[in-house]
Amino acid sequence: MNPSPLRVAAVIFPGFEVLDFFGPVELLSLPANAFSINTVAEREGAVQSAQGPRVMAERALSQSADYDLVLVPGGVGTRTEVANPVLLEWLRQAERSARFVASVCTGSALLARAGLLDGRRATSNKIAFDWVASQGSAVRWERRARWVEDGKFFTSSGVSAGMDMTLGLIAHILGRGAADDAARRAEYLWHDDAASDPFAAATGPQPS
Amino acid sequence: MNPSPLRVAAVIFPGFEVLDFFGPVELLSLPANAFSINTVAEREGAVQSAQGPRVMAERALSQSADYDLVLVPGGVGTRTEVANPVLLEWLRQAERSARFVASVCTGSALLARAGLLDGRRATSNKIAFDWVASQGSAVRWERRARWVEDGKFFTSSGVSAGMDMTLGLIAHILGRGAADDAARRAEYLWHDDAASDPFAAATGPQPS
Repeated sequence: MNPSPLRVAAVIFPGFEVLDFFGPVELLSLPANAFSINTVAEREGAVQSAQGPRVMAERALSQSADYDLVLVPGGVGTRTEVANPVLLEWLRQAERSARFVASVCTGSALLARAGLLDGRRATSNKIAFDWVASQGSAVRWERRARWVEDGKFFTSSGVSAGMDMTLGLIAHILGRGAADDAARRAEYLWHDDAASDPFAAATGPQPS
Repeated sequence: MNPSPLRVAAVIFPGFEVLDFFGPVELLSLPANAFSINTVAEREGAVQSAQGPRVMAERALSQSADYDLVLVPGGVGTRTEVANPVLLEWLRQAERSARFVASVCTGSALLARAGLLDGRRATSNKIAFDWVASQGSAVRWERRARWVEDGKFFTSSGVSAGMDMTLGLIAHILGRGAADDAARRAEYLWHDDAASDPFAAATGPQPS
C-alpha cells in the first residue's frame, strides 16, 4: 500500500525566477506518486515570471494553507514580496502544518521576513546575499553552502542550487536511492555535498 | 551600439517537460539584451506541461515562423506531437529563416519527424533513445553525447542536458565569457564538454 503523495504548495509571485521554480518541480515529479504539486499564488490565474513567460496559478493562497511541503522560489520579485503582508502571513500559517519548508535563491528572504528562520541556519543566492541577510537579523546565515538543512527548513543558494537541494530533500524523505533515480531520469549530475559551494568564494569575503 | 536581441521562439505543447523548457529559458535570459524570448504554441493560451503546471503561450504558431532561434523541448507530449502536421510544417518553415534550431531531450524526435535532421548528427534522451531514433532513419544519431552541434542545429540529451547545450549555444553566439557569466549568475556548474556523457553507458549498448 502506497502512502498518499505529499501535497506540495509550489508558490509563485510576479517576478519569480523560472529555474528556481521549475528545477525543483521537475525533480519532485519524478518519484512515482510521491509528490502532488499545486501551483499557488496570491490570486488564481496567470503570473508573470522574471524571465517573461507567464505561469498559471491554479489555487489562491486564501484557499488553503494546509500542505505537506511549501516551496518558495526567488527572483527579482522577492524585492516586492518581502513587503507583501498577505504572502508573509500565509507563509506563517502554512509553516505550522507543513512537514517541510523549502526555498531557492532569494526565496529565503521571504521566509526570513516572515520570521520563520529566526535562530535557524539558512543560505541564499551569493550575488544577492547581503540584501537577503538584511531581511532577517536573527537568522544564522551561512555564506558558504550549496544548501542548508535545519529541521523542517531547506534553503538553497542561487537558482541552480535549488535542484541539488531538492534531490537532498527527496533523499531525506524517500531515501538516497529515490534521489539518485530522479537525477538519473533527469540526466542531472547531482552535486550532492550540501557544504560544497563553488560560488561562495568568488563573490565576497567569508565570515570567520 | 548593441545589436538587436535574437528573437527566440520557445515552443510549448501539451505534455512538454518543464525543465527542458525553463532551464534554457533561464540561461538565455541572463546575457543582457541578447535574446528576446517568445513562448509560442499551436494556439495562444494555457498549455499544460507533463508535470502539471500550465504555461501561457503568448503567440500562436500561425502568427509567425520568422525567428532567429527556435527552441524545442521534449516531454511525453512528443509522442503525440510527432503526428501533428501543424507543428511539423511550422518547424519546416521556421527552420528556413532561423539562424539556430535547438532541441532538448525528446524534442529532437520532432525535428527528425519534420525531416530537418536528415543527414545530420543529433542526440536525444538516453532512456527514450530508441523511440526517438525511430523517428528519423536518415539522422546520424549519436548515443554518447551531452549535446551535438551540427551546423545550425543543436540537440541535447535528456532534460538537464538542455542547460549545458544552451550554455554551448550562448558561447557559440556571444563567446565563452558570456556563457561562463550566465552559468555563474545562475550558480550553475556547466558541464561544458559536449562529448562527455555520463548517462550514455548506463542505458544501453554503444554503437561501434
